Amino acid sequence: MKKLFILGTGPGDLQLLTPKAEQAIAASTELVAYGLYLDLLGDICTGKNRHDLPLGEEINRARLALDLAAQGKDTALVSSGDIGIYAMATLVFELLDRQLQGLEKSPQWLDVDIQVIPGISAMQAGASAVGALLGHDFCTISLSDLLTPWETIKKRIECAAAGDFVVSFYNPVSKKRDWQLNTARDILLTGRPATTPVLIGRQLTRPEQSIKIIQLQDLDAKDVDMFTMVSVGNSESRHIVNGDKQWLYTPRGYAKKLA
Amino acid sequence: MKKLFILGTGPGDLQLLTPKAEQAIAASTELVAYGLYLDLLGDICTGKNRHDLPLGEEINRARLALDLAAQGKDTALVSSGDIGIYAMATLVFELLDRQLQGLEKSPQWLDVDIQVIPGISAMQAGASAVGALLGHDFCTISLSDLLTPWETIKKRIECAAAGDFVVSFYNPVSKKRDWQLNTARDILLTGRPATTPVLIGRQLTRPEQSIKIIQLQDLDAKDVDMFTMVSVGNSESRHIVNGDKQWLYTPRGYAKKLA
Repeated sequence: MKKLFILGTGPGDLQLLTPKAEQAIAASTELVAYGLYLDLLGDICTGKNRHDLPLGEEINRARLALDLAAQGKDTALVSSGDIGIYAMATLVFELLDRQLQGLEKSPQWLDVDIQVIPGISAMQAGASAVGALLGHDFCTISLSDLLTPWETIKKRIECAAAGDFVVSFYNPVSKKRDWQLNTARDILLTGRPATTPVLIGRQLTRPEQSIKIIQLQDLDAKDVDMFTMVSVGNSESRHIVNGDKQWLYTPRGYAKKLA
Repeated sequence: MKKLFILGTGPGDLQLLTPKAEQAIAASTELVAYGLYLDLLGDICTGKNRHDLPLGEEINRARLALDLAAQGKDTALVSSGDIGIYAMATLVFELLDRQLQGLEKSPQWLDVDIQVIPGISAMQAGASAVGALLGHDFCTISLSDLLTPWETIKKRIECAAAGDFVVSFYNPVSKKRDWQLNTARDILLTGRPATTPVLIGRQLTRPEQSIKIIQLQDLDAKDVDMFTMVSVGNSESRHIVNGDKQWLYTPRGYAKKLA
C-alpha cells in the first residue's frame, strides 16, 4: 500500500513529539518539510531523504509529498505544531479534492493511503507554559492576509471580541506585514479590559524560549516576530504572581462553588 | 522541591501520549484523576497510589492534588486530552489565586512547584481522523451550563456563527442535559449552509472509536453522548469521497493559487 503520513511534531521540544509521529517518521524514507522543522527533530531524521522546500513553496511541498507516496515511497509530510492547524494537511486534501473533480492530472494520488497524525500546537505550548490560559472557550485566528481577505480576518476578530473568547493569533506578523496585530489589539480592546493579560511566547519549548506576560493595552507588533505566539485572555482571565513565579489562567466558573 | 505535574494524556491512544507526560507519571507516586482516565493508561499506572475521585468532585480533586504535593509527595493531576482545555488545570490556579488573596487556608500550596504538560485534545484527534477539519480559524465552545450561564454560551455560538469559525463543541450533552446542542445547531444554521459537514466522533482513538460525517441540518442531540466530540465545519469546509475513504477539510485559501 502506498503510504503518506501527514504529521505534526509539536512545538519543538522532542519530549512533546508523540510516539505515533516518531514511528511514522521512522517508517518513512522520504521526509517533506520546511527545513527548519527537520532540523528541530535532530537524529530522528538521519538517513532519510530530505525534501526541504522553502517557505512559500507550500503547494509544491504538498504535490511532492503526494507524488513521492504515489511512486511507492514511504513518505512523511512534516510540520511543527499540529499539521492540521494552520499547516500543510488541508492543502493535501484540497489537491485530492481537485483531482477528484478532474482539475489535476495526477490520478495516482487517489491510490495513496493517507494518515494524519496530530501534534501539540503552539497555543497549547504557550498556555501550559504559563498555567491554563485556554481554560475556557477560545478561538484561533491567523493574521496572515496572504490567503484570507483582511475583511474576513477583521470580522473574525470582531466576533471574537463580541463573544469574549480567549484568542490565539497565529502568524501574528511576518517580515513584510505587521500592522494587523495592532489593529486586532484595538478591536479586542472594544470588548475586554485594557488590563487583560496577554501571553507573548517566543520559540516555545525550544532552548531559546522567552515568555512575557503583558497587558492588552501594551501589545505592540514591534515586540513580536514570526516565531512568536500571541494569546489574549478573555475578560475574566487572571494574572497571578506567587513569589518569583507568575501564572495566567482563564477561570471556568467555579468561583461561586468555591466561595 | 515539592512537585505537582498537571498533565493531559491525549485522547486515549497511548501512541498519542507524549514522552513528557509519560515521564511525569513515572516520576510521581500519587496520581489524582477521574478513574476512567487512569484505566486508559494501563500498565503505566502500576504501583502508583491512585486517588480517583468521581465526576463532579473536581474541586476536591484539585485540592487533593495540591495537598499531596505540599506534603512532599510527587504528584500528578491527570486528565485525558489536554488538561488545559476544559479540564482541571485552571481550577488548580484558581485555588492558588484564592490562597494568594487569603481566601483559602492552605499557605503550603504556595511552595509547590507546578508544571503543566499539554496533551492532544479531542478536537485534534477528531480533525486528524477525518483529514483537516481545523485547517482554518476555529473556536471551541463548551455546551455545559453547569458553570457558565446559558446566555454567555448562546452569545458565543452566535459570534461563532457570525464569524464563520469552525466550531468544536465540548461537553455537547450530558446525562441530564441535551437541548443545548440542537439550539446550537439552529444558531449555526443562520450563518452557514444546511449542508455544512459535521464530524461526530465517539471514543476517538480508542478501540471502540466510531466516526460519522453528517450535514449540519441532520445534527441531533439524540445521536450524541458524553464520549462524543462534535465539530462543525465552516461555510467552506468540504466533504470529499475517494472510493471507500472519506475526508473533511477546511481550505485555507489556496484555491486561487491552484486554479
